[in-house]
Amino acid sequence: MALIVQKFGGTSVANLGKIKAVAQRVLSKHQQGHHVVVVLSAMAGETDRLIDLANQIQNIPAPRELDMLLASGEQVSVALLAMAIKKMGTDAISLTGNQVKIHTDGMHTRARILSIDHELIETHLDQGRVVVVAGFQGVAASGDITTLGRGGSDTTAVALAAALKADRCDIFTDVEGVYTTDPHICASARKIDRISYDEMLELASLGAKVLDIRSVTIAKRHKVPVQVRSTFTDTAGTWIVEEEKAMELNPVSGVTYNRNEARITVSKLPDMPGVASRLLSPIAKAGIVVDMILQNTRDGNLTDLTFTVLKTDYQRAMGIVEKNAQEIGAAGVSGSENICKVSIVGVGMRNHPGVAITMFDALAQEGINIQMISTSEIKISCVIEEKYTELAVRTLHDAFNLT
Amino acid sequence: MALIVQKFGGTSVANLGKIKAVAQRVLSKHQQGHHVVVVLSAMAGETDRLIDLANQIQNIPAPRELDMLLASGEQVSVALLAMAIKKMGTDAISLTGNQVKIHTDGMHTRARILSIDHELIETHLDQGRVVVVAGFQGVAASGDITTLGRGGSDTTAVALAAALKADRCDIFTDVEGVYTTDPHICASARKIDRISYDEMLELASLGAKVLDIRSVTIAKRHKVPVQVRSTFTDTAGTWIVEEEKAMELNPVSGVTYNRNEARITVSKLPDMPGVASRLLSPIAKAGIVVDMILQNTRDGNLTDLTFTVLKTDYQRAMGIVEKNAQEIGAAGVSGSENICKVSIVGVGMRNHPGVAITMFDALAQEGINIQMISTSEIKISCVIEEKYTELAVRTLHDAFNLT
Repeated sequence: MALIVQKFGGTSVANLGKIKAVAQRVLSKHQQGHHVVVVLSAMAGETDRLIDLANQIQNIPAPRELDMLLASGEQVSVALLAMAIKKMGTDAISLTGNQVKIHTDGMHTRARILSIDHELIETHLDQGRVVVVAGFQGVAASGDITTLGRGGSDTTAVALAAALKADRCDIFTDVEGVYTTDPHICASARKIDRISYDEMLELASLGAKVLDIRSVTIAKRHKVPVQVRSTFTDTAGTWIVEEEKAMELNPVSGVTYNRNEARITVSKLPDMPGVASRLLSPIAKAGIVVDMILQNTRDGNLTDLTFTVLKTDYQRAMGIVEKNAQEIGAAGVSGSENICKVSIVGVGMRNHPGVAITMFDALAQEGINIQMISTSEIKISCVIEEKYTELAVRTLHDAFNLT
Repeated sequence: MALIVQKFGGTSVANLGKIKAVAQRVLSKHQQGHHVVVVLSAMAGETDRLIDLANQIQNIPAPRELDMLLASGEQVSVALLAMAIKKMGTDAISLTGNQVKIHTDGMHTRARILSIDHELIETHLDQGRVVVVAGFQGVAASGDITTLGRGGSDTTAVALAAALKADRCDIFTDVEGVYTTDPHICASARKIDRISYDEMLELASLGAKVLDIRSVTIAKRHKVPVQVRSTFTDTAGTWIVEEEKAMELNPVSGVTYNRNEARITVSKLPDMPGVASRLLSPIAKAGIVVDMILQNTRDGNLTDLTFTVLKTDYQRAMGIVEKNAQEIGAAGVSGSENICKVSIVGVGMRNHPGVAITMFDALAQEGINIQMISTSEIKISCVIEEKYTELAVRTLHDAFNLT
């Protein structure tokens, strides 16, 4: 008998038919003798509807009141699921974030979980009930309702699994798991059976939107085995687990890409301390997030500095840099919105020194020029021209035998 | 500077335009230097939408989960109103029943308020905020969310006014106040300026649906001055207050009627102890509420017993009585669904002995036969044929000079 946390997203509870299907799925585990805790998002579309109402009152509504408003969404879905489970003959109880005591800080609309009381849930589980918890929400020390921001229900589920020392956390979603790359681009993309927390962190941060990055961080810290799987099929999904020896056999686990960034290059800067800071701090002050930063020494005490920002911030960042670069004494500023960052991720590359070369060779053979390179311990990213995205992804997927 | 509780029903917050209008109305009081606590219902239609969802899962959904579901409705309306008030430049904060600590018993879907904490609200008021409280809901000792049932937001408002020792409680609704009788039936019906708690209790229990009877009971017990007034105009409404000498000048304050009942008469019962009980207890056991009960002695140790039930329960009650009456030894059972109960209410009738006669005479002059009579200290009710309803109401309205 295991303790299982199951999380279902908004599309899985979009209407009463789907809620009943979720109830059946939950019951099948409960009837096997397992303790089941369910975490739900709001019904698909409901959160957007509420945000739209709030925006009609004010562009940026008061965050505390927005949280009060949005938290009603999960209250509806959990109550309906608990009813559906009870209708099927098994006792169930719904709980809000406040009732569970999911304690968060007071940063409304993007609160962080500080601690979770496990007693109440355990009492209900011991009495044979399925416990249905509202995802995405918590309560601040003030008693105010908070929400956790984007991907918040994933975070609730994994944090709850950690607090309850659950045997596993199943994240039900509308895809069958984590893939070696985007199946829409590469027909030979393959579902990954097992992946390490660190690889998943890199994939999540690189734009594979299967699982929120905060939930992966919590899973890693508390060693919660997480399975990403489909709500609509019974096939096994992808396990996100601690790193295993077997994972290192293949140097690369997946290929991912991100087309949301733009590149800005400042050339022939004087190569002296403080230059990068003088260039980038006005950008940060404007609230623009910088992703990659590369600096290369040139001959003659000059240096080139290149960085990427979100495409939506490109024009604004360019304006700041152009004004700034001249003062600092740079020769010129150039940039491009037509870029793509293609990345390979895998814990195995730590023991396979040739991985980077294989990547560069594969891209070169297709005539794809590399504009920037950035590496971490288990990831290599190349910035290329955007039009080569699909070709690059397929080429790398083949080059590392992921099919 | 006064402390005012203002309650707005679902039609007053039916859409964003109306919510903004409520915000303006609240602010006009706040800007006069008053402390304002607002109590809201869910947006019109929302509670019905949620009940419909629940009913699609189960005819009688689990009451605890139904409360969890329904309480989300007021959470939405209070958050939106707080946003709208803040947008207009005045600080505001929304609070759920749980956050205020509106403690109730655990009778889900019809909970009773046990106590209300006033500290949190007072703290916010002292800091210059408008406090917006979710009506209709509370929290049980278990931490479960409860709802107060029909008219629950009225109850929240008056109970809150009592707990805060507010100077008054304004109930904003879609009528301009309490009328001497139904204006749809009697064109000369007049808005009452002041009415006593006891008179309002009789009117509410007799079917004048302006104000929930529980809220009047609480208002009476705690001597909360309540004003029923229109959301959509600025004219003064009806004050519901302690009985005053002036009220007794006119023996009758209002005429009301109820067409929702049906009559059942059991004739020639043996006049012995226990007969009424044997006849009526199977009805009570079937969950059927009996309103009026009259028993008259006949000659020869026989008695007739007549009672009224809701029309919707008539067929069921008739079936039970017919089966039962024979065993008890009654001669026959008759009944009618085409009845109406017409009542006159007024604290003044205590000092005006001729009131009943005036009522009977007025009806007789119009050829209206009286089937049943029932009296309380400040009320006289007559059951008549339903087709005479409008004529009887107008006749009594005239007879007691209410125009």
